Amino acid sequence: MLKVAILGGSGYTGSELLRLLLSHPHVKVTAVTSERSAGCPVSDIFLNFRDTDLKFELLDVKVLTKKADLFFLCLPHKTSQETAAFLYNADKKVIDLSADYRIKNPKVYQEWYNIPHLFTSLLKKAAYGLPEINRKQIKKSSLIANPGCYPTSALLALAPIMGESFIDTNSIIIDSKSGTSGGGRSPAQPFMYCEVNESVKAYAVTSHRHTPEIEQELSAISKKKIKIIFTPHLMPMDRGILSTVYVRLKRDVNHLTVLKLYRDFYKNEPFVRVLRNGVYPNTKAVKGSNFCDLSVFINKRNSKGQTLTIISVIDNLLKGASGSAVQNMNIMYGFDETAGLLNLPPCP
Amino acid sequence: MLKVAILGGSGYTGSELLRLLLSHPHVKVTAVTSERSAGCPVSDIFLNFRDTDLKFELLDVKVLTKKADLFFLCLPHKTSQETAAFLYNADKKVIDLSADYRIKNPKVYQEWYNIPHLFTSLLKKAAYGLPEINRKQIKKSSLIANPGCYPTSALLALAPIMGESFIDTNSIIIDSKSGTSGGGRSPAQPFMYCEVNESVKAYAVTSHRHTPEIEQELSAISKKKIKIIFTPHLMPMDRGILSTVYVRLKRDVNHLTVLKLYRDFYKNEPFVRVLRNGVYPNTKAVKGSNFCDLSVFINKRNSKGQTLTIISVIDNLLKGASGSAVQNMNIMYGFDETAGLLNLPPCP
Amino acid sequence: MLKVAILGGSGYTGSELLRLLLSHPHVKVTAVTSERSAGCPVSDIFLNFRDTDLKFELLDVKVLTKKADLFFLCLPHKTSQETAAFLYNADKKVIDLSADYRIKNPKVYQEWYNIPHLFTSLLKKAAYGLPEINRKQIKKSSLIANPGCYPTSALLALAPIMGESFIDTNSIIIDSKSGTSGGGRSPAQPFMYCEVNESVKAYAVTSHRHTPEIEQELSAISKKKIKIIFTPHLMPMDRGILSTVYVRLKRDVNHLTVLKLYRDFYKNEPFVRVLRNGVYPNTKAVKGSNFCDLSVFINKRNSKGQTLTIISVIDNLLKGASGSAVQNMNIMYGFDETAGLLNLPPCP
Amino acid sequence: MLKVAILGGSGYTGSELLRLLLSHPHVKVTAVTSERSAGCPVSDIFLNFRDTDLKFELLDVKVLTKKADLFFLCLPHKTSQETAAFLYNADKKVIDLSADYRIKNPKVYQEWYNIPHLFTSLLKKAAYGLPEINRKQIKKSSLIANPGCYPTSALLALAPIMGESFIDTNSIIIDSKSGTSGGGRSPAQPFMYCEVNESVKAYAVTSHRHTPEIEQELSAISKKKIKIIFTPHLMPMDRGILSTVYVRLKRDVNHLTVLKLYRDFYKNEPFVRVLRNGVYPNTKAVKGSNFCDLSVFINKRNSKGQTLTIISVIDNLLKGASGSAVQNMNIMYGFDETAGLLNLPPCP
Repeated sequence: MLKVAILGGSGYTGSELLRLLLSHPHVKVTAVTSERSAGCPVSDIFLNFRDTDLKFELLDVKVLTKKADLFFLCLPHKTSQETAAFLYNADKKVIDLSADYRIKNPKVYQEWYNIPHLFTSLLKKAAYGLPEINRKQIKKSSLIANPGCYPTSALLALAPIMGESFIDTNSIIIDSKSGTSGGGRSPAQPFMYCEVNESVKAYAVTSHRHTPEIEQELSAISKKKIKIIFTPHLMPMDRGILSTVYVRLKRDVNHLTVLKLYRDFYKNEPFVRVLRNGVYPNTKAVKGSNFCDLSVFINKRNSKGQTLTIISVIDNLLKGASGSAVQNMNIMYGFDETAGLLNLPPCP
Repeated sequence: MLKVAILGGSGYTGSELLRLLLSHPHVKVTAVTSERSAGCPVSDIFLNFRDTDLKFELLDVKVLTKKADLFFLCLPHKTSQETAAFLYNADKKVIDLSADYRIKNPKVYQEWYNIPHLFTSLLKKAAYGLPEINRKQIKKSSLIANPGCYPTSALLALAPIMGESFIDTNSIIIDSKSGTSGGGRSPAQPFMYCEVNESVKAYAVTSHRHTPEIEQELSAISKKKIKIIFTPHLMPMDRGILSTVYVRLKRDVNHLTVLKLYRDFYKNEPFVRVLRNGVYPNTKAVKGSNFCDLSVFINKRNSKGQTLTIISVIDNLLKGASGSAVQNMNIMYGFDETAGLLNLPPCP
Repeated sequence: MLKVAILGGSGYTGSELLRLLLSHPHVKVTAVTSERSAGCPVSDIFLNFRDTDLKFELLDVKVLTKKADLFFLCLPHKTSQETAAFLYNADKKVIDLSADYRIKNPKVYQEWYNIPHLFTSLLKKAAYGLPEINRKQIKKSSLIANPGCYPTSALLALAPIMGESFIDTNSIIIDSKSGTSGGGRSPAQPFMYCEVNESVKAYAVTSHRHTPEIEQELSAISKKKIKIIFTPHLMPMDRGILSTVYVRLKRDVNHLTVLKLYRDFYKNEPFVRVLRNGVYPNTKAVKGSNFCDLSVFINKRNSKGQTLTIISVIDNLLKGASGSAVQNMNIMYGFDETAGLLNLPPCP
Repeated sequence: MLKVAILGGSGYTGSELLRLLLSHPHVKVTAVTSERSAGCPVSDIFLNFRDTDLKFELLDVKVLTKKADLFFLCLPHKTSQETAAFLYNADKKVIDLSADYRIKNPKVYQEWYNIPHLFTSLLKKAAYGLPEINRKQIKKSSLIANPGCYPTSALLALAPIMGESFIDTNSIIIDSKSGTSGGGRSPAQPFMYCEVNESVKAYAVTSHRHTPEIEQELSAISKKKIKIIFTPHLMPMDRGILSTVYVRLKRDVNHLTVLKLYRDFYKNEPFVRVLRNGVYPNTKAVKGSNFCDLSVFINKRNSKGQTLTIISVIDNLLKGASGSAVQNMNIMYGFDETAGLLNLPPCP
């Protein structure tokens, strides 16, 4: 059994990760940290956990290093920078769910996160952990930068066509709708029930930190410098991201041609499903699962050519965070890639 | 007191209209019809109504003609066609909340609604009832085609810039998020609680019937043939539409210039508010009110020029339906345009 | 116009009160305080307010005393004690929405609120502000202790029968279900969206501070020492309290007899409605209104006699707090008791 | 592998059962019926199902008899009567999730369900399928009457004390709060999103069909004729039942004594957890699981003695329906009782 530890386990991402790892066939969770709940049994903080004897402990990296071989970091950015570096240098493997090792260019990182990156050489060794576009690198890397939730939903929607000559790569618009768990578990006014319930709002318009991450990866796939328009919205629900992605086409393309492109691209992917024609993805159908559902539509109205609309749905805490982290672990260690990730979630 | 009747009063639009009219200072509601609830006191079907003695009655136009001077039609399309024509010919005034008199071109109507329009001469006399762009025509017309909810949110977002040379009129994308009351009060699988709750989905992608309505009005404002991309989404909440509208700019424009355009355009409008810089519209802030809140953002990232993002929020049952119908009545009859529409709604 | 001030106006109760007072025909709001938002325009914090020029100011009682004649206190308990006393001594009138002047017995107050009451002589002068049982005292008092939300829902359910010999006054059970706005606007873990949504839980079982308040008033009405069982529950919704109240009957009583008792008791009450037989109260029908809807049911199953079930619904922020405060003001000043309180709220 | 069929698989109970059975280690689902969706792949109707090739088929009992050994009936009552009888006579085993074989007394059945029971001899052979009180009978029976959701929540709350002399068995009040999925998947006005959302209401007060079922089982446990007061409420959430149960005590009992009674009663039960003192059960902690969480409280206020308050939470579709059906199957066939039922559900 692989010994794993979760650093930062009392948030929604950490607890969801713990849930997955506790029922993973090849893994034993040996430590979970939480500054605010150190000393408490995990099952006291999260009543849905029952049979575990785990207690939250303080984040003492030296002590923790001895306890596990693989470390999942659900820490705030900046803290992750140092912790990942320490563990990496101690010959441990790390899957970092923060943003700290996602942005390859330290200047871009500093511009968007307002702090310098102090481990730029390690940055080069980190693999961007989206299996569908980066599986080989993930397999041989010891430090995985686990993707953001919005980037996952956007990249899976766009990856199959980024290399196609028929798309206008200057026209990409990503309009994303997210559940509230993405805002984290710490008390904050904007995420209070009475503020979120019965309301929809956009936020961080033109300025969300996932923008450069999406651009970096789209640029890497298409081998062009890509800039995007990205607008996140907060929805009155716990989980789920639906991204509606708009791309102009340079020339007319048949709907079935596009559909085939998507089906071919994802044909061996265990967690991406291209829905049959006329079926609309909805976030409830992937809630609690590591799946991404996709649909593509061609709009023929505009006189200046067609627009492709791609809709993707994921569970932000699973495929958008902890599920994808487990998938990355499976790849790193040669486990079946779906191990621990195929439980059918309850619905409705 | 103006005598008014509501035809089709047992749906969400009809009951919301009744609510507004019951407290309107210049109006007396003399009849409300409902096929399914004929004979029942209104306050038996809608427990929130208390002091009214009104009973639902059957839709018998001949009888009804004698009862009122102004008729609000909350009927299904097709039924509205005939009923509006009958009433118009009986020298009554009509505000039609269905789609029947919105689309000026009968061929377009038939293409999208799958039935012919049988009253094409009357169609020419109908005014499209969006006061902010059509107040003069509304004032002198006897038949008002009350706008759809999505068109209202989209047109208010776009009207101020449609005549500007700096926008690319071939690039308009409208991504709308709507509450569930827009789906009506009749039982239907997709609007059951357990289907809607905790889920977001797109629907009618590339094919929603509000598309030609938006295009018609944008074309009229800009004096160009406009085609748009429109994607509606269903949200887990009762009320509210947030539309995120994307328009490419042909040349760089200063954010303050655009903001000023919007402020100037709406400076005398009682129900449209352009939010100060950095404030995000949210549907809860307009829930229960006839207001539309707007924000504009300029995105400078794309190498091929800027994109303008406009966000508008309305209450789909008020500014998107019944509130706007009352506003139109106020204009038609020379009442204060805000009469009966300024009650502050409860929040949260 | 009566000049009024709201002390503590940036919570849900304060803003709801402000909403009602801004459209009240006989009142002018001259000041609203908020420690956390002092200096901000009210309409910046609450986007649903539009036309008001009011700014939040710091709570400086000496300054405020000059600004208004009637003061609404939406302050934490303890702060209210002193502030009410200061204002009362300055010959001002006070409606205190905190618990500080509700409990007549200072020992009971200290037992449940863990602080001593420092103004016990003033305590005697305060009127418990539930108009339906205490209208005369309210009329002549200068200090109103505005009732708690749960007590309002429970007392209105029980008042008509407390004097009846057929009830077992030792058997009263009050099972209440409340929306989340009762928890206030300050960020706190238990009221975060993801904690409340899709969950129901009981809290403060056997220990809720509204218990002695309910007991005091029931005892006063029945002229017996009453003890109750009270269990509050938190619901995933913004507003509303539904209380299901169980009372054993000492002898069999006809359902119509009980119904008549209720109808007679409330026949002149503008805000309490006894529903016709077979109709179930629901919180949505009173949401946004100052109404209380009631139904009574007799259960004949138990071999040891009948049990009466009374169901009451109110909006916790209106009849349960701010609406009732306005009703009390109307009584104190001889305004029409319904002034400013009859706007029909939007539904759904 | 045991071959099982689900008759009536397109409702919420049926699909939840299918979800559990598809990942059960000892079972193969060979048929699922649905009158409205016959011919459709299951994964077309329920997008959350992915890898199954199952199609819905018509309910043709003769054909189905050959396909499986165990039949789960998620059919309307009355249809279940006949179907269960046919299958039983064909030497098949049946777990009936309808109410048809729960009520032992045919007169009581007819009184509450308005139809006669036509298979009264079979009725005697049916075991009431609540493992915690009836495990032995379940083990040897071929026809299991799977308990209703409310009865499960009430019986688990009461079973440990029904035989105790200190409780007043004439005083039992069960106040239950249920999510909306209990209302089923068929379109109906009261379960539309806009009717349920932001509302709480009681329904079927004094007349809910689960009343005689609860009374029958409580009577059986206590060997006394028990009558209860039962009030169900509809909550704005998908899943979960919280029952607040009140029982008068004939003499004072120590809280720890009661707690120990509960812990002892459930000490070997895999799915019932008595929470530690001071922790409140909430429906979200059991959502998606087969668990029941319980807390007990003693209220000492009433002058005429103590009242015991017991709070239980279950997921109405799992422990309240399909999970319990699987648990019963496990018992009937000698599988590990928790087989297929221990997946940790996602939360929040």
